[in-house]
Amino acid sequence: MQTFDWNRLSKQEQADALRRPALAQGGRDAQVADIIEKVRAGGDAALRELTRTLDKVELERLQLTEEDIAAAGSRVSEELKAAIELAIDNIEAFHRAQLPSPVVLDTKPGVRCELHYQPIEKVGLYVPGGSAPLVSTVMMLAIPARLAGCERVVLCSPPPVNDAIVYTARRCGVDAIYSLGGAQAVAALAYGTETVTKVDKIFGPGNAWVTEAKGQVSGDVDGAAIDMPAGPSEVLVIADESADAAFIASDLLSQAEHGPDSQVILVTPSRALAERVDAALAEQLAALSRADIARRALAESRTFICDDLAQAVAISNAYAPEHLIVQTEDPRALLPKLRNAGSIFLGAWTPESVGDYASGTNHTLPTYGYARTCSSLGLADYQRRYTVQELSPAGLQAIGPAVELLAATETLDAHKNAVSLRLAKLEKQA
Amino acid sequence: MQTFDWNRLSKQEQADALRRPALAQGGRDAQVADIIEKVRAGGDAALRELTRTLDKVELERLQLTEEDIAAAGSRVSEELKAAIELAIDNIEAFHRAQLPSPVVLDTKPGVRCELHYQPIEKVGLYVPGGSAPLVSTVMMLAIPARLAGCERVVLCSPPPVNDAIVYTARRCGVDAIYSLGGAQAVAALAYGTETVTKVDKIFGPGNAWVTEAKGQVSGDVDGAAIDMPAGPSEVLVIADESADAAFIASDLLSQAEHGPDSQVILVTPSRALAERVDAALAEQLAALSRADIARRALAESRTFICDDLAQAVAISNAYAPEHLIVQTEDPRALLPKLRNAGSIFLGAWTPESVGDYASGTNHTLPTYGYARTCSSLGLADYQRRYTVQELSPAGLQAIGPAVELLAATETLDAHKNAVSLRLAKLEKQA
Repeated sequence: MQTFDWNRLSKQEQADALRRPALAQGGRDAQVADIIEKVRAGGDAALRELTRTLDKVELERLQLTEEDIAAAGSRVSEELKAAIELAIDNIEAFHRAQLPSPVVLDTKPGVRCELHYQPIEKVGLYVPGGSAPLVSTVMMLAIPARLAGCERVVLCSPPPVNDAIVYTARRCGVDAIYSLGGAQAVAALAYGTETVTKVDKIFGPGNAWVTEAKGQVSGDVDGAAIDMPAGPSEVLVIADESADAAFIASDLLSQAEHGPDSQVILVTPSRALAERVDAALAEQLAALSRADIARRALAESRTFICDDLAQAVAISNAYAPEHLIVQTEDPRALLPKLRNAGSIFLGAWTPESVGDYASGTNHTLPTYGYARTCSSLGLADYQRRYTVQELSPAGLQAIGPAVELLAATETLDAHKNAVSLRLAKLEKQA
Repeated sequence: MQTFDWNRLSKQEQADALRRPALAQGGRDAQVADIIEKVRAGGDAALRELTRTLDKVELERLQLTEEDIAAAGSRVSEELKAAIELAIDNIEAFHRAQLPSPVVLDTKPGVRCELHYQPIEKVGLYVPGGSAPLVSTVMMLAIPARLAGCERVVLCSPPPVNDAIVYTARRCGVDAIYSLGGAQAVAALAYGTETVTKVDKIFGPGNAWVTEAKGQVSGDVDGAAIDMPAGPSEVLVIADESADAAFIASDLLSQAEHGPDSQVILVTPSRALAERVDAALAEQLAALSRADIARRALAESRTFICDDLAQAVAISNAYAPEHLIVQTEDPRALLPKLRNAGSIFLGAWTPESVGDYASGTNHTLPTYGYARTCSSLGLADYQRRYTVQELSPAGLQAIGPAVELLAATETLDAHKNAVSLRLAKLEKQA
C-alpha cells in the first residue's frame, strides 16, 4: 500500500488522493442498445440467439422447471444448507424489523392525511455467474422482496445456473428462475418476453455490460427502475494503535480480493500500526488463492497517516466509503460523527465478511461516493410510499379559504374554483 | 373531452388510450451540456453572463442580502402570510410524523444490527419563476428539508425573485436564496461557484431546460442527485353516478389549467355522469383566466365509460396517475385496491387543490407512470439510511462458522480468513 502523511498533502493532493478512478465503461453504449433492441423485437428467440453467440451456450429452455429446481437442491450439501438457514434467519429478522407503519394524522379537525406503503408489484433480481456461486447475493436481494410483499419475484443468472443459487432462490421464495445473463437478461426483465416476466424494478450487481444495460432501461419509462448506481467495491478502515494488525490486514484483503479495481484505504494516526499492517498483509497475501487479484488492488491502495481520530473521521466522511470498519479502543464513540458510509462495522470482532453473509444487514451498498445521497439496500427499496387525504365538510371549511388565497396568488383560478364551488354548496346547505 | 367505451376498445386500443405522449425534450442535450460546462469553468462570472444572455437580466448580485429578504417580506400582505402559516402548520405536522425511528436488533446474542437515518448534508431547491409565484413549491420542498435535519438548504429562483417566494423561503428556514434560473441554476447547485453552495441533491420542478440539466448532473457522481424524474402533471378521477358533476369538472380543470400538455382522465361506469361533467366543463371553462390553456389540455383528455368501479380501479392502476381523485358513494372502500398512484383524494370534499396547498401532504409527486416505482416526496427523500453492526466475541463464534462456509462456497478466501483469524485468536484466549 502507498502511505501518505495526510497533513503534508496540499488540499488538491488530498482531494486527488481520495478521488476514485474513472469508470471505464465507455464504448459499450451502442452494443448494449443493440442487444436491448434485439430482445425487445425478438423475445425468446433473440434471447436464445444472444446466449448462443455471447455466452456460447445452447439453451434447452430459458426457465428452470420444477424438476430442475428439485434436482439442483438435492445436489447442495446439508452443511451448506445449514449455513444458508442461519444467514436467512438473521437477514429475515433484520429486514422484517424494517417493515414501516403507515402515518395517519388529522392535521386539522376533519383534515385527514395518510402515508401508506405498497410493495412494488414485480421485481427482477440479477445474480452474476462465473466460477463462484453468489448465494449471498440471492439472499440479500430476494429476502426483502418477499418481506415487502412483492407479488412476483423473478431471478436471472447466466447459464448454467449454479445449484446453490437455484436452491437458495427457491428457499427465499423466488417465483421463477431464468438461465440468462448479461445485458440480454436485463433487457428481458425490463421489457418482458414470451417466457420472461416484465418487471417494474431490477436489483443486483453485474459486470460492465449489466451495469450499462441497467442504466439504459432505467432511463426509459417503459423499461424498469433500478436499485442504485454501481461502482467497484471499496472499504475504508479507521484504526488506532490498539488495533490488531492481522485483523485489519485480513479485512483489507477481503476487499482487495474482489477485483483489481477494488478500493482499499486505511486511515490511522499510528504510523507503527500502519507498518504492522503492511507486514501482516505480506504474510497473509502469500496464502490466498486470489493473491494476484488482491496484489493488483493493493498496489493502488492507500494508507493515510493523520493527526488523530477526529481527522480520520473527516477523511472517511469526505471519501464516503461503501464499507467502513472502525477498529479503535472505543469504536462506538466515533459513530455519531461518521457520515456518508454505506455500512459501518464496529470493533475487532466485526469483520466485513459478517455483513457480507450473515449478520443480518444487507450487503448491497452504495459505492463510488454515492453513499453521500444513496442508502444501503433495505426493505424500503421494494416498496413505494403514497399519500391519501380525506376532508370532511368542516375540514374543507377550515382550510379552504387559505387554499383559495394561495391558489389566487399563484394565478391558478381553477384550483381556487374547485374549493369555492364546494364552500358555496356547503354554505347553501347550512 | 373524448369519450370512449372501455370495453369496446381492443387490448391494443386500451393500451394506446392510456399511453402518455412522448416527452419532447430532444435537441436540448448539447445546449444544456454547454451551459453546465460554462458554469463549471466560469463560476459566478459565467452565471452573470448566462443570465444576461438567456434571461435578459443584469444581475447586481447572485445572492439576496438580508436587506433584500427583509424588504421582500415587508411587501407581502398579512392575509397571505396568514394563509402561508396555516399551510406550513399542516405540512410541518404531516412531515414531522414521518420522522423515522432507528432499528436496533440483536439477530443472535452478540450480533447487533442497526439501521440509522442521516440527513443529506446539503440540498438545493429549485422554484420556477414566471408570472405566478409558486409559494406552495417553496413550502413543499423546504419544510421536509429542515425537519430532516439537512445542514444547509439553499434555493434558486429566476430573477427577479418574487417577494412571496423570498418571504416563504426565509419563513421555512432556507439559508440562502440565489437569483438564478434555468439550466445554469441547476449547474451552479450541482458543482458550486464562488457564491453558490455545491449541494448533494437537487429538488424541484422546472421547464424542459431545468429537467434536462437535472438529468445530466445526476448522471455525474461529481454532480448531484435529484428528487425524481419529471413529466407533465396529470389527474385521473374515478366517479360514480352519485358524484357532483360540477365538483368533478372543477377538479379536471384544476389539472388542465397547468399546461396544454396536462393529462386529464375521467373513468366512470355512469354515462349520464360523464355527460353532466361535459356540460359543467363548458360552463366553468368560460370563466377561467387560463381558459385557453385548459381548453387545449381538455382537447387531448379522455373519458372512459367502464362496466363498474372494479374496472375503473383496474384502469387507474394500469395508468398509474400522479393525482387520483375518488368521488364515489364509498370512496374508502376502493382504497385497498388502488395501486400506483402518487396521491389519492377521497370523497366530494377533497379537491386536488387542498393537497396542492395546505392539507399537509406533499404536492411533489411522481408523474408519467413513474408512480409504479417512485414515491410521493416525503421526509425520506431528504435522508439516507445506513446500517451498523457490532459483534461480541460470542456473537462471532455463533455465526462465524456459517460465514466461513459461505465465503468458501463463493471462493472468497480472504473473506473466510478474516473470520478464521479472529476465531483462532478467541480459541487461543479461551
